[in-house]
Amino acid sequence: MGVNSNRVEHVSCLETTVTISSAEVGVMPPPMQIHKVCLPPKLTTLQKLKHRLTEIFFPDDPLYRCKNQTWFNKLIICLQFFFPIFQWGSEYNVSLLKSDVIAGLTIASLAIPQGISYAKLANLPPIVGLYSSFVPPLIYSILGSSRHLAVGPVSIASLVMGSMLSEAVSPTEDQILYLRLAFTATFFAGLFQASLGLLRLGFIIDFLSKATLVGFMAGAAVIVSLQQLKGLLGIAHFTSKMQIIPVVSSVISTKDEWSWQTIVMGFGFLFFLLTARHISNRNPKLFWVSAAAPLTSVILSTLIVFLLKSKIHGIPIIGHLPKGLNPPSLNMLYLSGPHLAVAIKTGIVTGILSLTVMDGNKEMMAIGVMNIAGTCSSCYVTTGSFSRSAVSYNAGAQTAVSNIVMASAVLVTLLFLMPLFYYTPNVILAAIIITAVIGLIDYQAALKLWKVDKLDFMACFCSFFGVLFISVPLGLAIAVAVSVFKILLHVTRPNTLILGNIRGTQIYQNLSRYREASRIPSFLILAVESPIYFANSTYLQERILRWVREEEEWVKENNGSALKCVILDMTAVTAIDTSGIDTLCEIKKMLEKRSLKLVLANPVGSVTEKLDQSEITESFGPYGIYLSVGEAVAHTSSLWKAQP
Amino acid sequence: MGVNSNRVEHVSCLETTVTISSAEVGVMPPPMQIHKVCLPPKLTTLQKLKHRLTEIFFPDDPLYRCKNQTWFNKLIICLQFFFPIFQWGSEYNVSLLKSDVIAGLTIASLAIPQGISYAKLANLPPIVGLYSSFVPPLIYSILGSSRHLAVGPVSIASLVMGSMLSEAVSPTEDQILYLRLAFTATFFAGLFQASLGLLRLGFIIDFLSKATLVGFMAGAAVIVSLQQLKGLLGIAHFTSKMQIIPVVSSVISTKDEWSWQTIVMGFGFLFFLLTARHISNRNPKLFWVSAAAPLTSVILSTLIVFLLKSKIHGIPIIGHLPKGLNPPSLNMLYLSGPHLAVAIKTGIVTGILSLTVMDGNKEMMAIGVMNIAGTCSSCYVTTGSFSRSAVSYNAGAQTAVSNIVMASAVLVTLLFLMPLFYYTPNVILAAIIITAVIGLIDYQAALKLWKVDKLDFMACFCSFFGVLFISVPLGLAIAVAVSVFKILLHVTRPNTLILGNIRGTQIYQNLSRYREASRIPSFLILAVESPIYFANSTYLQERILRWVREEEEWVKENNGSALKCVILDMTAVTAIDTSGIDTLCEIKKMLEKRSLKLVLANPVGSVTEKLDQSEITESFGPYGIYLSVGEAVAHTSSLWKAQP
Repeated sequence: MGVNSNRVEHVSCLETTVTISSAEVGVMPPPMQIHKVCLPPKLTTLQKLKHRLTEIFFPDDPLYRCKNQTWFNKLIICLQFFFPIFQWGSEYNVSLLKSDVIAGLTIASLAIPQGISYAKLANLPPIVGLYSSFVPPLIYSILGSSRHLAVGPVSIASLVMGSMLSEAVSPTEDQILYLRLAFTATFFAGLFQASLGLLRLGFIIDFLSKATLVGFMAGAAVIVSLQQLKGLLGIAHFTSKMQIIPVVSSVISTKDEWSWQTIVMGFGFLFFLLTARHISNRNPKLFWVSAAAPLTSVILSTLIVFLLKSKIHGIPIIGHLPKGLNPPSLNMLYLSGPHLAVAIKTGIVTGILSLTVMDGNKEMMAIGVMNIAGTCSSCYVTTGSFSRSAVSYNAGAQTAVSNIVMASAVLVTLLFLMPLFYYTPNVILAAIIITAVIGLIDYQAALKLWKVDKLDFMACFCSFFGVLFISVPLGLAIAVAVSVFKILLHVTRPNTLILGNIRGTQIYQNLSRYREASRIPSFLILAVESPIYFANSTYLQERILRWVREEEEWVKENNGSALKCVILDMTAVTAIDTSGIDTLCEIKKMLEKRSLKLVLANPVGSVTEKLDQSEITESFGPYGIYLSVGEAVAHTSSLWKAQP
Repeated sequence: MGVNSNRVEHVSCLETTVTISSAEVGVMPPPMQIHKVCLPPKLTTLQKLKHRLTEIFFPDDPLYRCKNQTWFNKLIICLQFFFPIFQWGSEYNVSLLKSDVIAGLTIASLAIPQGISYAKLANLPPIVGLYSSFVPPLIYSILGSSRHLAVGPVSIASLVMGSMLSEAVSPTEDQILYLRLAFTATFFAGLFQASLGLLRLGFIIDFLSKATLVGFMAGAAVIVSLQQLKGLLGIAHFTSKMQIIPVVSSVISTKDEWSWQTIVMGFGFLFFLLTARHISNRNPKLFWVSAAAPLTSVILSTLIVFLLKSKIHGIPIIGHLPKGLNPPSLNMLYLSGPHLAVAIKTGIVTGILSLTVMDGNKEMMAIGVMNIAGTCSSCYVTTGSFSRSAVSYNAGAQTAVSNIVMASAVLVTLLFLMPLFYYTPNVILAAIIITAVIGLIDYQAALKLWKVDKLDFMACFCSFFGVLFISVPLGLAIAVAVSVFKILLHVTRPNTLILGNIRGTQIYQNLSRYREASRIPSFLILAVESPIYFANSTYLQERILRWVREEEEWVKENNGSALKCVILDMTAVTAIDTSGIDTLCEIKKMLEKRSLKLVLANPVGSVTEKLDQSEITESFGPYGIYLSVGEAVAHTSSLWKAQP
């Protein structure tokens, strides 16, 4: 097969190594081996679409374990996929159970006070926090695939739900409506999560980059902590707003409501909790210190208030909590009316935030189903908790049975221990919340972002201050916008590099980075480090022509040999669109006006295909596209020698 | 310098070719040459920022001609830059003037009827279209740098202005306010354009991809043509809406208003104009046929109406037009009040649309200044017209003097010929508009988009139907969103390829594309074709681990030699962020659990730098990062041989 066909051959080109003979090309180049650039295997539009959709939705090939299996095995595998309990259940034994019981009880001691506290954060009755620590863990233990994930209410989702719903409805004046909206939001959160998982759209969550989350979490933690000043200082009339400015001014303007008894008790226990946390952080083996501290604080503070109740006043207490299991709540869903939109919005935002801990579409489905089920049993949004999962891991949880044990402990509490919380002071809940959220401020991660990637730091910074000064959902939106802008900026202004040859090799590298790389006389070798798109095609055209101009000036100043050929190394041009193709043609024309030849080296599969489809391969002729920069240089030079 | 330092060396690593001796690494690899991966030259944050900003705002290095010049020359160059007339003015001669006069008169014959027609399209008095064909071309001839650009009102911007403003204010009931808003929108369009140019943000326009514009233009052309049915059928009561459905139903429901005289005359001249257009398209030398046709039609139809005025009725005519030059209009600007927002919005949208013909920040400034000046002299939005510029090119325009000649012809018209338009029928204007906009429907470009790039076609399709069924600005917004989504999709789901070696070379290429590429036993060589970002890091991790799993299964089935090393070819990984770095670490750990070695090949400058800053280079050790896949394979194999 010769080189007489201008169009690039399809993959059927078996003998791509071509020895050029004089007869075929008219001139007399020395015989030399060059490799043809092949097209990728030809696919129909439908096949391409199928491939593309598979890559978008099933990158992990979830059915791979079903290959070459009998239908019975396939059924088992499917069952195990949707109910992981069938996977580990059959191998469960007493030794595993022992570990799980210890871990389960440890996280229960943390989950009970946190559940009550987080419900208050969401402006919900404390008991809803306990309900939410009972049903969802049971459901997750059947559906979930993580061994250490401790499920229940979490601070961020509680804060966001509280902040978004209380903008629409006052949680104190219209308690029932607020509760209904909370359940409805939970329902939509679950529906959204399950749909994301089912439609395999989990990757949408990836758009919340780690940098964004670091800033967001820290901002939310600051907001939550400031909100707790209400409890810590014993303020009765507090702003319902979430931004830093109204909260701080509300704290200052209510100075006369501060209660010294509350302050002493609050800061005392806060100090105790933070110290316990510090000890556990220093030595992970002592994880139980911080795990036990909240329950200890609750018990101690309740005792203090109970014993001194005749002596001190002005410390607000939780008061009566109803005994008994989760009441059904499906009838409370608010599915039509003026507040439906805010419930859906809250559901989607808290749903997204709850998924940031998750990994993979399967887990999203489990969490979604868990939340939908929770809606029917008086639970609000739940997910895996960072802090409790860490405790669960340290306590040696082996399977999801640890979640069952924890739920059982909550069950006992709900059935028998509720009256004990009567004298628990609200201030202790504030201290527990602060201790929990302070761990979300990851200043070391922020420092690392600054060190490694200034733009990532920028996204982090924006989400932090956005949350602090504007609002939680808007802060998040700004941060996502910054992250997306970063991607677009990279695409809009890609790098272009001049390459030189490293002596004695076929390696071509950036001249400014590798001193031993040297220019090849008469050639300008440019690498474009980005797809060529509508968004950068004008820039690339300008930039490439500027490189050519500068090279020509350099040649003139240094009396080098005149520039004759520009090679574009297309290795990193991973895609091209129609604007990009037009730009390539335009550059080729403009270079030809200056009597310069444009040669492409190593276009990737999809680019080769598009060049071929738009028929510009032909305009490049048989010697316009090479497999590597090395072959382009060698063969072009040999052509010049043959035809000086 | 040895390989005992784990961290990658800065560019100071002069002797990057390292011969490894046994003493340094403890084992006994055969002596072989490998090249070190260098860091790019070290820059401070400030230097990087400066470099980045220069690339964003000054990719064309606009001051390069000022280098090494005396201050006087610099002044001249600057003057020539801002007023290109100083550049060509000194070399102007009679022969150039002759060409320019011919071209100027030709475009004037087109510009006068089009100016009147387009003003009607924007719901403005016809005379404003002539004013706008007089002052702006004069200003452009001083500031502009294009030789062929014929400046004046254009159809798309007129349509958009008419559609957006008439939603807020009725052009028939509140003529003065409407006129004021039109001038104000023009002012903001100019301000926006000049600012984009001045702030060098012209690249924002690039986000309107060619594909988007093809669809948008076609949609707008259909809308404009349908609107002209009012004039062509002689309907008096027509909808003011722009969408296809209300327009078509308005045409049908007013059947009893149709006037046969108008219809006969309208379709007669439409046929004449389209035939003239067809002739010119077939043979570009006959460009004057289509250039002269509109004025001919105007003259003929005016004569017909004038001669038959006693016999036929019911053909609406333009009526009285005031003689005289552009009156000042600065006092008419509407800078405060309830309609200011709509004026600003209209200005920005029409401003953006007017720039799609333009190229470069300098031209944007010229167009912006021209529009601001136009605001003061009763002109509405003007820019370079596609169709008239093509005529100008064909008619042999040599310099911006052609614009001056055209303006002079308009001047004569304004001063003396206005009464002649009294009997010009409105129907002829409709025919002229349809003929002009029909050229905007570029179905061949749409077909090519379908052939080359389905997603580009999708963007085109969306903007076409968005404009047709929703609204002009929203259609545009949808199309931009589709284009940006396409970029994000490419980033979210990048290609990963398995590479093999092409026998007898150091070239590694995609196995599925090149049959002569062959696997290297014990190695899996993967190329990642995208930056590694937060948006794709989860996907890439899953996908890479799936490749490894599939490779191991393949090895098992084919009794190949066991997989020992995974090489990631990082050539096309043009950037990495902190999430990407974490992913690399994660992949490395997961591979190590399976006793597989992870090796990186040819990381680009910025990636190398970030790997170094985040200190993961150390975890890769001295033999974890190579300059090329070839060296990685050769050296890793040699290490295995030395230490089996």
